[in-house]
Amino acid sequence: MRQAGRYMEAYRRLRERYTMVQLVKTPELAVEVTLQPIRAFDLDAAIIYSDILPPLEAMGLQVEFIDGEGPIICNPLRRQTDVEALREPDPRESLHFVLQAIRLARRELDGHVPLIGFAGAPFTLATYAIEGGSARNPILTKALMYREPQTWHTLMERLARFIGHYLQAQVEAGAQALQLFDSWAGALSPSDYEYFVAPYSRYVLQTAQATGVPVIHFSTGTGGMIEQIATTGGNVIAVDWRVQLDEAWQRIGYTHAIQGNLDPAVLLGPPEELARQAIGILKQAGNRPGHIFNLGHGILPQTSFEAVAYLVDVVHRGSRR
Amino acid sequence: MRQAGRYMEAYRRLRERYTMVQLVKTPELAVEVTLQPIRAFDLDAAIIYSDILPPLEAMGLQVEFIDGEGPIICNPLRRQTDVEALREPDPRESLHFVLQAIRLARRELDGHVPLIGFAGAPFTLATYAIEGGSARNPILTKALMYREPQTWHTLMERLARFIGHYLQAQVEAGAQALQLFDSWAGALSPSDYEYFVAPYSRYVLQTAQATGVPVIHFSTGTGGMIEQIATTGGNVIAVDWRVQLDEAWQRIGYTHAIQGNLDPAVLLGPPEELARQAIGILKQAGNRPGHIFNLGHGILPQTSFEAVAYLVDVVHRGSRR
Repeated sequence: MRQAGRYMEAYRRLRERYTMVQLVKTPELAVEVTLQPIRAFDLDAAIIYSDILPPLEAMGLQVEFIDGEGPIICNPLRRQTDVEALREPDPRESLHFVLQAIRLARRELDGHVPLIGFAGAPFTLATYAIEGGSARNPILTKALMYREPQTWHTLMERLARFIGHYLQAQVEAGAQALQLFDSWAGALSPSDYEYFVAPYSRYVLQTAQATGVPVIHFSTGTGGMIEQIATTGGNVIAVDWRVQLDEAWQRIGYTHAIQGNLDPAVLLGPPEELARQAIGILKQAGNRPGHIFNLGHGILPQTSFEAVAYLVDVVHRGSRR
Repeated sequence: MRQAGRYMEAYRRLRERYTMVQLVKTPELAVEVTLQPIRAFDLDAAIIYSDILPPLEAMGLQVEFIDGEGPIICNPLRRQTDVEALREPDPRESLHFVLQAIRLARRELDGHVPLIGFAGAPFTLATYAIEGGSARNPILTKALMYREPQTWHTLMERLARFIGHYLQAQVEAGAQALQLFDSWAGALSPSDYEYFVAPYSRYVLQTAQATGVPVIHFSTGTGGMIEQIATTGGNVIAVDWRVQLDEAWQRIGYTHAIQGNLDPAVLLGPPEELARQAIGILKQAGNRPGHIFNLGHGILPQTSFEAVAYLVDVVHRGSRR
């Protein structure tokens, strides 16, 4: 998960002076935000501070971030001609600010912890591009999928190709692991996922894995089809809290590593409850080396700094036992 | 699922003259809406037109329905004293309008198709009561659960007792099957579900099943824990489209019937796609008598009347084959 955020005072202070877009597009600032949680907590990895939407912007969509409202896309994709008009510029130029942030962050981290790069998966990016923003139920996206399968497949092919290049460029710039976020995959049935989505995620994941770095395949709400998520690709499968971690492992097989899976809301509870649930997850993982402890989704803005510090401590003590 | 709705012209015409609250609270109008889809389509059962929130109103919460915004609760529950102030009036009086609608609907249906009654499950009602409305992520609810478990358990106990009485009263009034809607259960981890929710759902489901009518246990987003949903209770387990129906059956065992599980968005697609997916579900069900074909969630307002008629026809032809 993105580790920096409004729950940190250092981040809020930066956000008083800069918009999110400025933080993302100014490599020095993105590095500063990337390092904030690393300085504050005893974390085992850093993840580059960025967003999943810059690639859509590079492809020709106009993205605006409105505080408290989430992103808005002013020219959403609705028909074949919109999809054909998408550009596929070299990410080394169009997304140079992310790559430069990765280079600088690697230098600053100086081997202290590894740096993770990331991108949104084709389906999740397609939902933003079609819905025009974040949609609880991506109905326009599904309607396009069913009504204009050819348009859909063209769109997904373009997204997959561009994201593949982008992830390769991140590794060239120094990313030591990659995460593909398919945050909306849980809106789909297993058969729609297989037909309309999996081929494109598979292409991106294979491209990412071919660089040689470990690749984390993230999704939420996919407890009914984690086997499919796993066979689609990734060395590590991220599962959310809606499935038990030990069952998840049984279902996808022990050849995959697993990332997860604390409900971020547990950080709002008292320390005893937080410790109980974190230790419960470690027990389910059975201290396997292939377990990356993480939240099942993004940290909530109202989380306290102390709760995060306490969680990191509980996890470290619990896993070294 | 509620079958009537804005996708039907007959319903929209009634809604021009009456608010949703008027339709729900005037038995003659509720019956009219209940019968609209039965007259329009060759359906196998009717479900009483109502809402899940009247029981919360009967218990002392002020519920307002704002068009296009969903329900709002003006005095949400936030602390122990709020929970203690809840009333538990006899549903035969406080919810007489629903019971009267059931009596009248039975008379009108005259044995043509059976009539299903329903209620919201304790957890789903608790999220509305605490969040003050519909919340994509019920964070206040979870925070209360973790921080004040005693308050939580008191609330759930009261909700379960009242809903149990309400469902019993529905059967006395003539309901021939019952459905318990736990629409928000998918927000929870399996362990939180087990500890904070299952005991209360189990009580309600047992109370409902003790009346002798079949009981459908509905939830969404629970593909990672359908075994638990099934062991909590209900003769029929409703699954959404996020899990394959054949796998769902394998996981919960063939002693349960299954309801489901078409994605409502498929009704927005072309007839070929709709037929392909509906027949796919029937194939997964293997023509078992314990399969109730249904959508995995509520019908979308933008659905066309023709698509619903076509779907009913495809399902009937496919299951008689």
